[in-house]
Amino acid sequence: MSSLQHVNPRVRGIRASPHSALQSLAAHITQEITQMAQKSFREVIDVSSGDSHQAGMKPISFVRQVLAACLHPQLLRDRSLPLDVRLRAQSLLDVCEGGSAGSYTDSSGMPHVRQSIAEFITRRDTEIPSYTKDVFISAGSQRALMVLLKLLASGEGETWTGVLTPLPCPHTLPMLLDDAGVTLAPYRLIEERGWAVDLDELQRALTAARRHCEPRAIYISNPGNPTGHVQDKKSIEEVIQFAAAERLFLLVDEVYQDSVYGQDTQFISYKKVLFEMGKEFSETVELVSFHSLSSACVGECGLRAGFMEAVNMDPGVMHYVDTMLCTDISTPVMGQLALDLMVNPPKLGDPSYDTYKQEILLTQTTLSQNAQRAWRVLNGLPGMSCQPAMGGVYLYPSLDLPPEIIEQAKMSEVEADVLYCERLLQEEGVLVGAGCQHGAATVRHHLRLCVLVPPDTLEEVLARLGSFHLRLTDRFPRSDTVVLKVGSGEPQGSWRKVPEGPQQKGE
Amino acid sequence: MSSLQHVNPRVRGIRASPHSALQSLAAHITQEITQMAQKSFREVIDVSSGDSHQAGMKPISFVRQVLAACLHPQLLRDRSLPLDVRLRAQSLLDVCEGGSAGSYTDSSGMPHVRQSIAEFITRRDTEIPSYTKDVFISAGSQRALMVLLKLLASGEGETWTGVLTPLPCPHTLPMLLDDAGVTLAPYRLIEERGWAVDLDELQRALTAARRHCEPRAIYISNPGNPTGHVQDKKSIEEVIQFAAAERLFLLVDEVYQDSVYGQDTQFISYKKVLFEMGKEFSETVELVSFHSLSSACVGECGLRAGFMEAVNMDPGVMHYVDTMLCTDISTPVMGQLALDLMVNPPKLGDPSYDTYKQEILLTQTTLSQNAQRAWRVLNGLPGMSCQPAMGGVYLYPSLDLPPEIIEQAKMSEVEADVLYCERLLQEEGVLVGAGCQHGAATVRHHLRLCVLVPPDTLEEVLARLGSFHLRLTDRFPRSDTVVLKVGSGEPQGSWRKVPEGPQQKGE
Repeated sequence: MSSLQHVNPRVRGIRASPHSALQSLAAHITQEITQMAQKSFREVIDVSSGDSHQAGMKPISFVRQVLAACLHPQLLRDRSLPLDVRLRAQSLLDVCEGGSAGSYTDSSGMPHVRQSIAEFITRRDTEIPSYTKDVFISAGSQRALMVLLKLLASGEGETWTGVLTPLPCPHTLPMLLDDAGVTLAPYRLIEERGWAVDLDELQRALTAARRHCEPRAIYISNPGNPTGHVQDKKSIEEVIQFAAAERLFLLVDEVYQDSVYGQDTQFISYKKVLFEMGKEFSETVELVSFHSLSSACVGECGLRAGFMEAVNMDPGVMHYVDTMLCTDISTPVMGQLALDLMVNPPKLGDPSYDTYKQEILLTQTTLSQNAQRAWRVLNGLPGMSCQPAMGGVYLYPSLDLPPEIIEQAKMSEVEADVLYCERLLQEEGVLVGAGCQHGAATVRHHLRLCVLVPPDTLEEVLARLGSFHLRLTDRFPRSDTVVLKVGSGEPQGSWRKVPEGPQQKGE
Repeated sequence: MSSLQHVNPRVRGIRASPHSALQSLAAHITQEITQMAQKSFREVIDVSSGDSHQAGMKPISFVRQVLAACLHPQLLRDRSLPLDVRLRAQSLLDVCEGGSAGSYTDSSGMPHVRQSIAEFITRRDTEIPSYTKDVFISAGSQRALMVLLKLLASGEGETWTGVLTPLPCPHTLPMLLDDAGVTLAPYRLIEERGWAVDLDELQRALTAARRHCEPRAIYISNPGNPTGHVQDKKSIEEVIQFAAAERLFLLVDEVYQDSVYGQDTQFISYKKVLFEMGKEFSETVELVSFHSLSSACVGECGLRAGFMEAVNMDPGVMHYVDTMLCTDISTPVMGQLALDLMVNPPKLGDPSYDTYKQEILLTQTTLSQNAQRAWRVLNGLPGMSCQPAMGGVYLYPSLDLPPEIIEQAKMSEVEADVLYCERLLQEEGVLVGAGCQHGAATVRHHLRLCVLVPPDTLEEVLARLGSFHLRLTDRFPRSDTVVLKVGSGEPQGSWRKVPEGPQQKGE
């Protein structure tokens, strides 16, 4: 492997994420600041990922206390910890091999935790049963998805496996599809309708895909990453009917199921809808749903755990899910134990209940208020337009960039939205995600912002972003009056160039 | 994916581990015991894996205390924890994003921990420098190996990538090679010489492999898993010269570097030897060395972390290592922090030093004494012969099975050593590993036993195993006098059948 030509061609084919370059730039700027470089800001704020702890949100005390006691069992006798914390830690240690959180577990996860998850799903879907054998724990939902994609991958040329993939999609998905050797077959979400899934578009996308690959699955993100859209029952039924008619495997990312805040909006699982559609569907449609410890309320991204539930999967196929998970040996035990706490939190009357409830409520309120606040501010900026989010942790505003920026981007051989993010980072120390990393290839440009951050941080981000954006607008003002169309995704006006004054050259 | 035919053929090609069936049987028996079934034993003892905590070995207090304080930072003010524990926890939290162990890290690991590792390697190899940029952290050393195998995989038919693989090899390796799409090109270790690596055999294996694939790498396990062999400097030099001459990439599993106990034996890293061989080698031979948190002394298998150091790897290739690790998002933070503690433990004079030193010493003494004790007992059993181990956590005795057992195994379509393990498990509740899972295909049968267990547990295992083995011997006594050839791997005598009495039928 002495040179690049010897690297596996499939690995070489994994598309590079434009976000890596932005992250490197952010790290570089942070280093400059520690070396006392003069900047107009004191630190880089990263709202590009859904990592709420990194942004300053607090962990759930109950989760952390129980895990600490599992790691250091002398705490089981520490009366400064609530009784339910100590009891829970003891009961979790009892189901660890050798009574230690340092032992391996079954590759598919600890039976006790898988059972807790199955019970949680059964409660969530109001008594539609979930079975332990159908639940697989992995080191994050992405790892579970990777296993499924690998099972689905086969063929070559026109028989190559394709996965119908939303545009925009979660930013790591294109890379995972490449790694698994699966074709991304795009379908567009409808921005003007708040990024809804559209049946005609699915049909069109499928027909188009069949010309060059064999679409065998459809990927759905609900609540939507990065869109914030939450599907209603009717929309989910449509997708299930489509999947059933076209014999597509349903891969449903439901990791933000605990963070739906849109008015009159609630999370309904694909599985629940499937089972309410009658046996014709509930006994045939193959569905896998993913959930994660990195979800909004618990947000333990660093512990690395997630799970999937498989519905109507052939037992022979499930055997291979197990085989693939074996190559990881086992999911981190701390993550597995935290999953148990996430799906089975303190109950009314437990000593930890009040604190737990307050912490969850604070997260949910912060998320909902931040989303509204950011939406209003972003829509108030010229050339920016943001659909209201109903769930998840992101806003995904569209950006009408001046032709000069697009021209400059072309010359520098970067995407125009990446150039925008680069400038924002350099001038204001704010790191947001560029739309092009969401499998884009649209004419419109977008940004991704995580709004699950402390309200003060959000204000600072919005102030810096607004200030940068208005400077850009001043430099390249638009030719017509700004018309704010809040909630609509229509481009607002177009840009005309203003000659740069000498004072701007040195910026 | 409604049926098996639709599963990716490569995934279907991953060989099933015979150990899974044994593990299921062990779980089944444990369940029977909880349901009050009558057994001659009270619990199943599992010495098949290198999971010392599962077997009852205690974790390192310093590691657990620091991690607990990182998870639950209120402990930073808890004066019942030693001062160095609290200071270390604070300094680790300072390098976590957002000051939380719940945040993502860089895909290749936290820069601080990578630096600690590089400093550890530099100290270990007496000032041969190691660089942070060459160290990659992953969720276990197996994950790191998987990334390398995937990079190496290419071609088809005769150009298919092959990896020279020792027989016996670590039991998960054949599965990983299958998953990566790489051919296992076997070379035999020489049992009679304590499982040494033999240069002529490497040469023979390479020539044989080149007839059906393109060998591009050689895998070495030192200290040997499962053999317990530790290579001396001369043997390592030979392998390096061979790799250099044949342009093979060196993949070196050095996870048991902290557990060498053979008389006049010490661990020498491949990297150190490489650098002492002069620039001709040290600037050209491509080497990756793996280490793990699941190593003997720390033994935190459940936290899932390991690392690799790359030497002479093309920067362009290293970029793809990074890309592949990105698909995991990041390594579990608890595991990364524990790695930092493993490579940078308390120093003389620190409050935690004495306890730490005692705990490490206890582990090392237990391991060394157990290995000797087990070796003596196993060699005392008729038809069993065990090479003395010099390092690692396993013994790997060979087993001269009676023809009747081999016949029965054939009829049941299982390997004879698996049948032996199955019977041992059923009759005595002891789970050991069957030799055939180590890529075997030899005429001899073997067992793998982990000896890093509390001494009482070991005695119980040896008593049950001895008692089972002698019953088997009585049932099928051997035709000649038993000659004990301790330290030799020669088969000892052969078996003849004795008619089974009716009393044995119901067993």
